[in-house]
Amino acid sequence: MKNCIGRELPEYIEGYGKVRPFEGAFVNSGKPASRPVSKIMKSAVPGGRKLYSSLDELMEILPLKDGMCVSFHHHLRNGDKVTNLVMQAIAARGIKDIHLSASGLFACHEPLVPLMEDGTITQISVSTFGAGPVAQAVSAGKLQKPAILRTHGGRARAIESGEQHIDIVFIAAPSCDSQGNMNGSHGKNACGCLSYNYPDAEFADCVVAVTDNLVDYPCCPAEITENFVDYVVTVDSIGDPAGIVSGAMKVTTDPNRLAIAQRAVDVLDRAGYVKEGMSFQTGAGGISLAVADRMRERMLEKGIKGSFGIGGIHGYFVKLLEEGLLKTLLDVQCFDLEAVENMAKDPRHMILSASQYANPENKGCAVNQLDVMILGGFEVDTDFNLNVITGSNGVIMSASGGNADTAAGSKISVVVSDLMKKGPRCLIKDKVITVTTPGETVDAVVTDKGIAINPRRTDLIEKLKDSGLPLVDIRDLLKLGEELGAIRENPKFGDRIVAVAEYRDGTVTDVVRQVLPE
Amino acid sequence: MKNCIGRELPEYIEGYGKVRPFEGAFVNSGKPASRPVSKIMKSAVPGGRKLYSSLDELMEILPLKDGMCVSFHHHLRNGDKVTNLVMQAIAARGIKDIHLSASGLFACHEPLVPLMEDGTITQISVSTFGAGPVAQAVSAGKLQKPAILRTHGGRARAIESGEQHIDIVFIAAPSCDSQGNMNGSHGKNACGCLSYNYPDAEFADCVVAVTDNLVDYPCCPAEITENFVDYVVTVDSIGDPAGIVSGAMKVTTDPNRLAIAQRAVDVLDRAGYVKEGMSFQTGAGGISLAVADRMRERMLEKGIKGSFGIGGIHGYFVKLLEEGLLKTLLDVQCFDLEAVENMAKDPRHMILSASQYANPENKGCAVNQLDVMILGGFEVDTDFNLNVITGSNGVIMSASGGNADTAAGSKISVVVSDLMKKGPRCLIKDKVITVTTPGETVDAVVTDKGIAINPRRTDLIEKLKDSGLPLVDIRDLLKLGEELGAIRENPKFGDRIVAVAEYRDGTVTDVVRQVLPE
Repeated sequence: MKNCIGRELPEYIEGYGKVRPFEGAFVNSGKPASRPVSKIMKSAVPGGRKLYSSLDELMEILPLKDGMCVSFHHHLRNGDKVTNLVMQAIAARGIKDIHLSASGLFACHEPLVPLMEDGTITQISVSTFGAGPVAQAVSAGKLQKPAILRTHGGRARAIESGEQHIDIVFIAAPSCDSQGNMNGSHGKNACGCLSYNYPDAEFADCVVAVTDNLVDYPCCPAEITENFVDYVVTVDSIGDPAGIVSGAMKVTTDPNRLAIAQRAVDVLDRAGYVKEGMSFQTGAGGISLAVADRMRERMLEKGIKGSFGIGGIHGYFVKLLEEGLLKTLLDVQCFDLEAVENMAKDPRHMILSASQYANPENKGCAVNQLDVMILGGFEVDTDFNLNVITGSNGVIMSASGGNADTAAGSKISVVVSDLMKKGPRCLIKDKVITVTTPGETVDAVVTDKGIAINPRRTDLIEKLKDSGLPLVDIRDLLKLGEELGAIRENPKFGDRIVAVAEYRDGTVTDVVRQVLPE
Repeated sequence: MKNCIGRELPEYIEGYGKVRPFEGAFVNSGKPASRPVSKIMKSAVPGGRKLYSSLDELMEILPLKDGMCVSFHHHLRNGDKVTNLVMQAIAARGIKDIHLSASGLFACHEPLVPLMEDGTITQISVSTFGAGPVAQAVSAGKLQKPAILRTHGGRARAIESGEQHIDIVFIAAPSCDSQGNMNGSHGKNACGCLSYNYPDAEFADCVVAVTDNLVDYPCCPAEITENFVDYVVTVDSIGDPAGIVSGAMKVTTDPNRLAIAQRAVDVLDRAGYVKEGMSFQTGAGGISLAVADRMRERMLEKGIKGSFGIGGIHGYFVKLLEEGLLKTLLDVQCFDLEAVENMAKDPRHMILSASQYANPENKGCAVNQLDVMILGGFEVDTDFNLNVITGSNGVIMSASGGNADTAAGSKISVVVSDLMKKGPRCLIKDKVITVTTPGETVDAVVTDKGIAINPRRTDLIEKLKDSGLPLVDIRDLLKLGEELGAIRENPKFGDRIVAVAEYRDGTVTDVVRQVLPE
């Protein structure tokens, strides 16, 4: 069958189940549904023991079993040590066929690859995926079952609705007390917040806090609280600070890319979005950060003040907060040290749960209040469908994260990118390898070679037509790419489906097939 | 049938249901149970409307129906205007047979009495009950069905387990934005926190924020968040500040009562509880507050620092925090203005959810970590069973609140009271009118005429036997009362059960019968 964006999908995928085809970004909005969610209610005994000083000892009493789903968060990013440590301890007990549900996996998780090969881990679901060995192993078909690539909001939805049941969550906790009150904002491996494990803490059968910083009861602040936590285990180190927050989050210095950022701000300003009380979100890429920086300048020039910055928070947003150009920050993950430090001290820097941030199936998520979203991505097709999963060689290099969530929720979403990338390859394709974010929710693509507005946004086209900004048809950008000598790799795919790209409502936008060796 | 503390109970109560008899404070502890909880999952549409400026207009679209359960919180205490306003608006629409589930009701809710009489409200469940017209009306049998008197933890348990389904919660919000992010700590009717409505916000089918202080999105701090909220309605005033926080929260000046407080501290000190890292909770009565004050002096004398104060927070605890004698405050309700002001500015003053505070059926509640609890109460029997519900005339004057929860969780619980009260009546009875807190969890009764230690606590008796403190058998206190001329009213009760006193696990410790006119 084909979904509404023309992607061919099987009706059923072995190891995944029945496929619900994507039918449109808002088709499932506004529908109330009563769903029974089965939760383990455990009644604690006063004086009962939660604290263990040995992961091995704790493993003896955990309800480990073949076929279980275990989960983790990715706030320690490429410095996370907990996922490897726990999965290896589980593997050492001979447990097989595990579904590993992490909010994200990075290159540092390479030690999981042998566990994928030996059948310890047979499925992975993630919403953030760093390029590297684990993503490559998925693309190479090393998992027995297809990986599930969700959006941040979609992951929260899947867990809260019971669609993705978690047996045990292991929460890396930079600070934690003996009863499981914990936070991510304090301690030698502080990472900011722990938002992406809130649904797991609430709905997993068993909740384990893993900490290298045991503090006196009660841990203050208490971001995830004791009433959700079964066990606390101390380990030597949960992370490597160098990998947790990257010092590399810097505005691009490339004049061409700075010009793209400037152009994006011009588009937003002419379209009426740069105004008193505006809110915005940017990704962590060099051009996106430059948009935050250029937006600051424009706000100062115009003498306006914004409302909130949201999503992954970085130093550029902290600066806007401290200068009074934003009133609040709504944080689901800290991208850098400035953000971590600011969160620990400034009450205007608020933490959102994953669900509050982006889950489309609750009573209202914060991305629905967002004005402007600056998107990154690998490829855009002429229907504005965006691929943020597979690189040009067909290998998985990322996952949707908040991309599709914010594109759907925001009043305007803008892709910022060079038209021509290394290769040279062109950003615009007639058909992207994998559709992550449907074109229906992508409003504009701002490149150095021209600005393409989604024809659905007739209002934008009307506002920008006399602006002097270089508006072009997106098909002309494709042609221009060809004229500029864009190559197109044609990765060889096998039939086997190695990953399923889910939209935030759990329908399938696309599948990723195994890349065959050259 | 009789429960384990000898109270005669029917097996079934019309309008309440099957009675589960109380079988012991910890009989149901430690039992995991998987329970399906049905929740309405609503998928918000971006741009959808939540905000209404007229309660009447909102009423038109709410799913009102006969027999529904609606709920409220009591953090505005005797200054609450929302419960009356909403119930009258519902009554005006002819809705009948309503179960009113409030975390508390006070004298200011007298306008509800006519709604009880005309069948609009046929049942009430509360965990805090102020003496006055509503409590009197319950005792007089004006409700068609028995009231349910729960503990704070028991109310959270009942809602979270699905035992008490809430159709619509109306949350009085001192600050709220258009999407329903709200807090209790800011605004002209600031009341501190909104903890007792967290379970309602999470599990009610429909969640309405009622505010007189609409703030820009996003409300900061956001104590209850938009993902839980269906509607926001603005009204002229949610409360009367004079009634919200009482200026009457003062340490007793009666020398006899001050001596009781001093004696309680002596008992706790000799028993080894006044030590580095100690935690404690006191009620809001004059002697209880004096214990907090005397404890401060003892801590200074001994050069020790405590850990946390918990529960209803008052200025005496704030002083301990500010002086560094407590590290943190764990707050479920602010008792006075000092507490409200401190919460708004000091991150060490943390908010607990009702469940995190005292729900016995989660993975660990904070009262389980509490060292010392200072209890109030109307009567204690010779088995140390405590009555905090009915006055000596048999009329309901209060409800358990956190009494039974903290008595069960704390390492030591101490009742502080004059032996002889107005009348004169004696604190100690051979049989209390209503058992709220089982004697199994009450460790000592400290009076001006002697200190009775629960014989179950042989460790305490051993520690105190050579202390010079006036230890007496509780039966001797009863006799002494008689010698001092204690009268005992013998209120005439009818057969009809007007209220059911539930223990925190949902079993029944006692029933309250209708008081017949003299």
